[in-house]
Amino acid sequence: MSTASDLLAALGARGWSVAVAESLTGGLVTAALVDVPGASSVLRGGVVAYATELKGTLLGVDGGLLDARGAVDPDVARAMASGVRARLGADVGLATTGVAGPDPQDGNPPGTVHVAVCTPDGTTVRSLLLPGDRGEVRARSVDAVLTLAVDLLRADRGESAASAG
Amino acid sequence: MSTASDLLAALGARGWSVAVAESLTGGLVTAALVDVPGASSVLRGGVVAYATELKGTLLGVDGGLLDARGAVDPDVARAMASGVRARLGADVGLATTGVAGPDPQDGNPPGTVHVAVCTPDGTTVRSLLLPGDRGEVRARSVDAVLTLAVDLLRADRGESAASAG
Repeated sequence: MSTASDLLAALGARGWSVAVAESLTGGLVTAALVDVPGASSVLRGGVVAYATELKGTLLGVDGGLLDARGAVDPDVARAMASGVRARLGADVGLATTGVAGPDPQDGNPPGTVHVAVCTPDGTTVRSLLLPGDRGEVRARSVDAVLTLAVDLLRADRGESAASAG
Repeated sequence: MSTASDLLAALGARGWSVAVAESLTGGLVTAALVDVPGASSVLRGGVVAYATELKGTLLGVDGGLLDARGAVDPDVARAMASGVRARLGADVGLATTGVAGPDPQDGNPPGTVHVAVCTPDGTTVRSLLLPGDRGEVRARSVDAVLTLAVDLLRADRGESAASAG
């Protein structure tokens, strides 16, 4: 199974829905989820906030944060994940922001990527420096946010099982 | 050149920006545009309103229309295109809605697809019955909306040139 189908299965087992906020991945995370048969029972939708100001207007990311740090920042990823979760009414929010390249952005080298996952238990951010050209950085970013979400859902299940034992 | 790069070139020549509202294509139209180098100067972003109610809350599609006709409807495609154009502050809005399959939706067979393009001159809808499996219907839908937009921008340029001559 793909990471996308693993994630949809883990979400479905809990009866949880998911929504996606994307910057550098430009719709590829949402498309990976849509590609899995049965996605419509779990996936609510997504927002591609490619222009920086749309991270504020569409996702509720604080304008002062965006002005101070730019769009490529772990706290922006965190705010995107919690914002899309709230605005689309989902149980879990996923987010990606970063630099696909070939040029640096706001002093961040190509491959600088922050992915975030917001669940009812809180928000987790993973910051990465990914190798490859634009397409490879994007593909690895998609895998990174899906993998983080699967890891969190499995860890949570493991803890629940342990505390119940 | 790809249809996506043709469209971005045509938009760039006018100084116009673009935003995308997607249902069955699930992010693939936006991703096709992001994949073109220099997209950031033209593409504002996109909304994937996969759950039907999000077509209302995120894109402003009339709830009565959605209740009466369902999500797979030419007037819903029209409202998605004009809604994303207005809400994301773009000059041109693109939209897709339809049935990827394998099952019918609201009485519409798989491959039923409506794509719409909203420009400052108005909104145009193209309704199609596309062959193929889920992936093929999606890929053809992406091409259909990009092609419609390129056709409209070229036609408009032709008319302007003719009237100026």
